[in-house]
Amino acid sequence: MVKVTVWNENIHEQTDAEVRDVYPEGIHGTIANFLKENGLEAKTATLEQPEHGLTDNVLNETDVLIWWGHTGHDKVDDRIVEKVKDRVLKGMGLIVLHSGHFSKIFKSLMGTTCDLKWREAGENERLWVVNPSHPIAEGIGEYIELDHEEMYGEHFDIPEPDELVFLSWFRGGEVFRSGCVFNRGLGKVFYFRPGHETFPTYHQDDIQRVIVNAVNYVKPLNQNQPIRGNVQPLERFDK
Amino acid sequence: MVKVTVWNENIHEQTDAEVRDVYPEGIHGTIANFLKENGLEAKTATLEQPEHGLTDNVLNETDVLIWWGHTGHDKVDDRIVEKVKDRVLKGMGLIVLHSGHFSKIFKSLMGTTCDLKWREAGENERLWVVNPSHPIAEGIGEYIELDHEEMYGEHFDIPEPDELVFLSWFRGGEVFRSGCVFNRGLGKVFYFRPGHETFPTYHQDDIQRVIVNAVNYVKPLNQNQPIRGNVQPLERFDK
Amino acid sequence: MVKVTVWNENIHEQTDAEVRDVYPEGIHGTIANFLKENGLEAKTATLEQPEHGLTDNVLNETDVLIWWGHTGHDKVDDRIVEKVKDRVLKGMGLIVLHSGHFSKIFKSLMGTTCDLKWREAGENERLWVVNPSHPIAEGIGEYIELDHEEMYGEHFDIPEPDELVFLSWFRGGEVFRSGCVFNRGLGKVFYFRPGHETFPTYHQDDIQRVIVNAVNYVKPLNQNQPIRGNVQPLERFDK
Amino acid sequence: MVKVTVWNENIHEQTDAEVRDVYPEGIHGTIANFLKENGLEAKTATLEQPEHGLTDNVLNETDVLIWWGHTGHDKVDDRIVEKVKDRVLKGMGLIVLHSGHFSKIFKSLMGTTCDLKWREAGENERLWVVNPSHPIAEGIGEYIELDHEEMYGEHFDIPEPDELVFLSWFRGGEVFRSGCVFNRGLGKVFYFRPGHETFPTYHQDDIQRVIVNAVNYVKPLNQNQPIRGNVQPLERFDK
Repeated sequence: MVKVTVWNENIHEQTDAEVRDVYPEGIHGTIANFLKENGLEAKTATLEQPEHGLTDNVLNETDVLIWWGHTGHDKVDDRIVEKVKDRVLKGMGLIVLHSGHFSKIFKSLMGTTCDLKWREAGENERLWVVNPSHPIAEGIGEYIELDHEEMYGEHFDIPEPDELVFLSWFRGGEVFRSGCVFNRGLGKVFYFRPGHETFPTYHQDDIQRVIVNAVNYVKPLNQNQPIRGNVQPLERFDK
Repeated sequence: MVKVTVWNENIHEQTDAEVRDVYPEGIHGTIANFLKENGLEAKTATLEQPEHGLTDNVLNETDVLIWWGHTGHDKVDDRIVEKVKDRVLKGMGLIVLHSGHFSKIFKSLMGTTCDLKWREAGENERLWVVNPSHPIAEGIGEYIELDHEEMYGEHFDIPEPDELVFLSWFRGGEVFRSGCVFNRGLGKVFYFRPGHETFPTYHQDDIQRVIVNAVNYVKPLNQNQPIRGNVQPLERFDK
Repeated sequence: MVKVTVWNENIHEQTDAEVRDVYPEGIHGTIANFLKENGLEAKTATLEQPEHGLTDNVLNETDVLIWWGHTGHDKVDDRIVEKVKDRVLKGMGLIVLHSGHFSKIFKSLMGTTCDLKWREAGENERLWVVNPSHPIAEGIGEYIELDHEEMYGEHFDIPEPDELVFLSWFRGGEVFRSGCVFNRGLGKVFYFRPGHETFPTYHQDDIQRVIVNAVNYVKPLNQNQPIRGNVQPLERFDK
Repeated sequence: MVKVTVWNENIHEQTDAEVRDVYPEGIHGTIANFLKENGLEAKTATLEQPEHGLTDNVLNETDVLIWWGHTGHDKVDDRIVEKVKDRVLKGMGLIVLHSGHFSKIFKSLMGTTCDLKWREAGENERLWVVNPSHPIAEGIGEYIELDHEEMYGEHFDIPEPDELVFLSWFRGGEVFRSGCVFNRGLGKVFYFRPGHETFPTYHQDDIQRVIVNAVNYVKPLNQNQPIRGNVQPLERFDK
């Protein structure tokens, strides 16, 4: 069974009643719950816990890590970021949600600023499937419709995604690469745009379906660790 | 005229007579010289200089930075690395040579370990052109032949290159992705494998041709800086 | 000087007064004119000419071929398509415009159906630059705004583009990959979406700028023809 | 259970005793047998059968088609090629082996000549894994070693693969992109280089493992057929 750890900074939920109303169990709780309803094993971890809840024991039991952060990016310890990055490069799957585009872990794996345009206006978003046979889009029709979301617009400063699954359309005139797979080391990283804390995005069925699909897509498949470093010449080797 | 700064840690040249014999002007001096012979403006900078020779004034006058490092990667100041990275993301071209695969600047832009296999045996290498219409391969025939080089072998832990120009064949049985273009932010990064310090690789005509071509390819072309951050709604915008 | 041949089926211009009003010199004439104003050498060719105007003599003098077709795709002779395809694979640049997505030459180079969604409603289109340092976007700001265009929507059945330059937003709720570079053989193919025959799209400055940029981008750069077929063993070769 | 149809032109097996000795059941028989041993459902089809054995009934029962051809490419009926292509674009997986690089179906899906360099010398080949976490490489170590194979060398005239899994090294001095995934329409195409008819390549365990892995990788996963063609405006649509 795939083991997922859902990490959330869990700040807005404690400081903003509007967010608490939408996510009374925290964004992490909501996500963990629907993962479990879909047959996955899911635990949560948050910023305020020792080592942000990402101890070696926890990471040893994590096939896929989901990351939601926003206002607390700078509070994440660099050593934890390095540990998580090392795990991803060795094969752990990583799903970065929404404002996690500015998290240390995502920026470190991308090598770019990951900056973008944004507008908080609760406007209509449509996520069009541009890769209709991709496993992450399985069961989704042509697009996902969100009635109220924060806008993220291009130019999104990321490396070219290895696989582009969703493109967003926003009522206000912008587009955005909203579902992007990046292969990094032996791991897969999926960035998924939606999920502003004041909107009930993670309660919506098709959004949950995408995240469940993504967990199954980015989970480690092939645990061969490549040999690197100094190697001996082959027997047949002759200058 | 394109302005190039050739950066070299310049350590082997001072500590190893064998290297000094091959590169009496330093690897940086040799490279800067053939760039100038090819009509480019080239200066040099080295690790031991203040700010490693990469002051704001120098970087302001740099269209393309060439990087050679090996034993001194850890001695490069993190703040200089951040400054160089910021320049690349804003459009400065970067060419990383040989053992520069383990430099802080390259690893930071790639987001992976950039680890590989290696063997110092002075064996034969052939760099096959796998993208024959690519500007970096202009004037190169089917392949470049190097009589004696250090071997680098797969798996090379890099993100999928945006453009793959050369694949190396080594006498001892290995292959390697030897010429790789990565787009990062507004900048282009070219990694070029050959150039072990004890071999006269950078004196060879076709290797020089590739580096000249690469300078012209990665130089900034389009200086539009995208708008990011919070943007106002369009006039027509209505929820 | 780059030599461009602008091919147009030139049917709507003869049968539809509305189109003739917008393009009294034909779409091909309008495009050839602005190319010349931008310092390029440009000739035209049309469907009704012998060999559709694409004789060996014409193709011998063509660095870049621009293609506009719509209602007459089936009237294009397969042998001419094969000749054009052969030229592209040997290095000739090809720019396919708008409804040319369904041309024989484009479908043959792509290997897919090139089908898409469409709606003729004269609605607002924005072409967002998603690759701001790409030469084809040089001089374009953040986006191109078209007041009235036909809508093309995803899923667009093309192979993953080698370079994605523009993404379109349409007022009616759709998105589209509108500026796509494909490397095929030694040639570059650029597909550019806008240009419905009843709208003055090709009279607009920024659209003209993109097409001029694209000509300079897809023109042949490196005329080395790779060696293929049966090759002799190397001297050193021993089983 | 995944249903595989193994297609072989089945000519060398009938005309060349040397080939018959290596593959007494035909290449198709050998492949079908090891697929069945690995829990897959496998049937065979050959050139000399009516409709080359690829009737609608057969294709309706095919999730993945494997293709081996060499001397009989021109004998394959264009209408069958079109039918197979249509199936691939709608989601059927396709695995093209060795000299199938010159088959009509592969060239038609690629849009390029698919030409390459070759030498029949029974020399040593190593297929290096360059994407160690790819499902197709699962269970393979660092490389596959083949003692005797025909050489295929670059430049291989294919579009840039969507995923590159194997790179071959040949004793005689060449390299080759030997394991390539291409997404075309809703289907996945895997090209796998080894398998000259006079060598026992398809009897080797790790080669069989790759083909079994590939069947599971290219099989249809997501049967949503995208909507294309003329679409009605959205309710909210207003010019």
